[in-house]
Amino acid sequence: MKEKILQLLYDAEAYISGEEMSHTLGVSRTAIWKVINQLKSQGYEIESVTRKGYKLINAPDLLNKEELHYDLHTDFIGQEIHTYETLGSTNQEAKKLALEGLRDGTVVIANEQTAGKGRRGRSWVSPPGTGIWMTLLLRPDIQPQHASMVTLVAGLAVCEVIREVTGLEAEIKWPNDIVLNGKKICGLLTEMNSEIDYINFVVIGIGINVNVAEFPDELKGIATSLLLEGGQTYERKVLVKRILERFEKYYKLYLETEDLSHMIDAYQEHCVNIGREVRVSRKNEVLIGTVKKVSDKGELIVIDDKGDERLIHSGEVSVRGIYGYV
Amino acid sequence: MKEKILQLLYDAEAYISGEEMSHTLGVSRTAIWKVINQLKSQGYEIESVTRKGYKLINAPDLLNKEELHYDLHTDFIGQEIHTYETLGSTNQEAKKLALEGLRDGTVVIANEQTAGKGRRGRSWVSPPGTGIWMTLLLRPDIQPQHASMVTLVAGLAVCEVIREVTGLEAEIKWPNDIVLNGKKICGLLTEMNSEIDYINFVVIGIGINVNVAEFPDELKGIATSLLLEGGQTYERKVLVKRILERFEKYYKLYLETEDLSHMIDAYQEHCVNIGREVRVSRKNEVLIGTVKKVSDKGELIVIDDKGDERLIHSGEVSVRGIYGYV
Repeated sequence: MKEKILQLLYDAEAYISGEEMSHTLGVSRTAIWKVINQLKSQGYEIESVTRKGYKLINAPDLLNKEELHYDLHTDFIGQEIHTYETLGSTNQEAKKLALEGLRDGTVVIANEQTAGKGRRGRSWVSPPGTGIWMTLLLRPDIQPQHASMVTLVAGLAVCEVIREVTGLEAEIKWPNDIVLNGKKICGLLTEMNSEIDYINFVVIGIGINVNVAEFPDELKGIATSLLLEGGQTYERKVLVKRILERFEKYYKLYLETEDLSHMIDAYQEHCVNIGREVRVSRKNEVLIGTVKKVSDKGELIVIDDKGDERLIHSGEVSVRGIYGYV
Repeated sequence: MKEKILQLLYDAEAYISGEEMSHTLGVSRTAIWKVINQLKSQGYEIESVTRKGYKLINAPDLLNKEELHYDLHTDFIGQEIHTYETLGSTNQEAKKLALEGLRDGTVVIANEQTAGKGRRGRSWVSPPGTGIWMTLLLRPDIQPQHASMVTLVAGLAVCEVIREVTGLEAEIKWPNDIVLNGKKICGLLTEMNSEIDYINFVVIGIGINVNVAEFPDELKGIATSLLLEGGQTYERKVLVKRILERFEKYYKLYLETEDLSHMIDAYQEHCVNIGREVRVSRKNEVLIGTVKKVSDKGELIVIDDKGDERLIHSGEVSVRGIYGYV
């Protein structure tokens, strides 16, 4: 009901009367009036003029179902959205929901995370109201060994949308960060629950520092936000919807071939690793080399100091010039 | 304490007096007497003779900590064992314990499963007291894409131990069954919880039909037990301990190379697929061919009808002559 009234307000050219809304939705004018007041108390600026009706002047940047469903054009990604004021971590909640059987494409999003996680249990700072802290739940019918590429698919979608919405030149740091001027603006954390040859589910956590105004001292050198780089705030809800749409587009292409062949050019265009010196830490060795490209399978192809091509599937990758590797 | 008294009884050449036990363990003779009574009520046959002491005549085939730890020679597999009278499923319990942080090598074992599971959620019949329904919790520091081989490692261990303990000619049906005279005697279900390049944990469920006397009609054609094939009952506790030991031996070799190179000959020796016609069902095709061998990476190498080698990573595999594929 709130979603429908909000939609009428958004869609109205100018004023829309309480009577018209009451008629369209088949509810009393008192019911309409109650919801309008509710919206106002949530921060919506709604002008009421006698004999003309209501007009939406300004909407707050809320990440609630009503806002996120309005003007979202996807088939299944985000068609079911679970929103929370506060969560420990959106990945944790999404995994719990996945075990309860929630559908492919469900999105979990929180205004604040109190125990946000990066890779290998590292913590991720997620202050309230300033960022996008969300997780996509997916149930792809593909081989588990092809699942790691989904992180690159999500990274590409986030990078492109940040560039389009903000005009800032975001780049992808393979495999799971987005950077801006050499500092981290977004981190991705993909987790999988699988049998040998069957994926039960995948969750992709996406954390984007949108309007974070300040970072703790220990993060200042390596993390930044769209606000700090762009000098203005950005609407989180707009970014979320455009990311879900772009992700769905690339994800469908990826499921067709179970690789990145349909999007590898776009990926490489924005991949900061290409042509740069990288240092790859693995269990038993440290490899230093220059990145030639990213393969259709999502591997990093590195030329080592002997001139040999090396295929990097994973591992900790530092790029010279980024996060203090100089 | 019960474990220690049981160990003294097992280790005694003939009779051991209450006084000696009381002295060795530093507890009162009354305490000893209480435990002896407890053991008797659990089904242990213990003879007591005045002035000689106690003698263990016969021990029931119980899967409890005391029995499983006695005479178990491993470094870490099964050093922590959680035993249950009844569980929904041992994999489910092991996954829960894994999330709580339980250690590498922990074993979960139940006398009965009420909701035992096979691959892709199929049900697995696990009547009380007649089989081995257990799960190994592992935390291997290897790449997730190498983890599927651990099923083959476990299959080899189970197959060899069944052959040695019972003399029956068990064979491995790649990738996750053990068969006897063309019927299933054991199923393995491996599940993984991982990040892209990091395994949180793996659980391997092992279900062995040891002393199952009869199967439901719909399973009679495809399932059997050691009892039905061997014409006698077998001690589950002995099988469990020998399997844990053998698994640990092969698992260590597998972790060294992250492949099966150190055990592939033993594997192939018992692999029923080799040289047989197989039908492999995959998402978009059905492949019929003859199995040439199993690779060091655990893949099935199949020669198709054009004479080309095809690498099978996974999928549903039927072997001609087994489970009604004739």
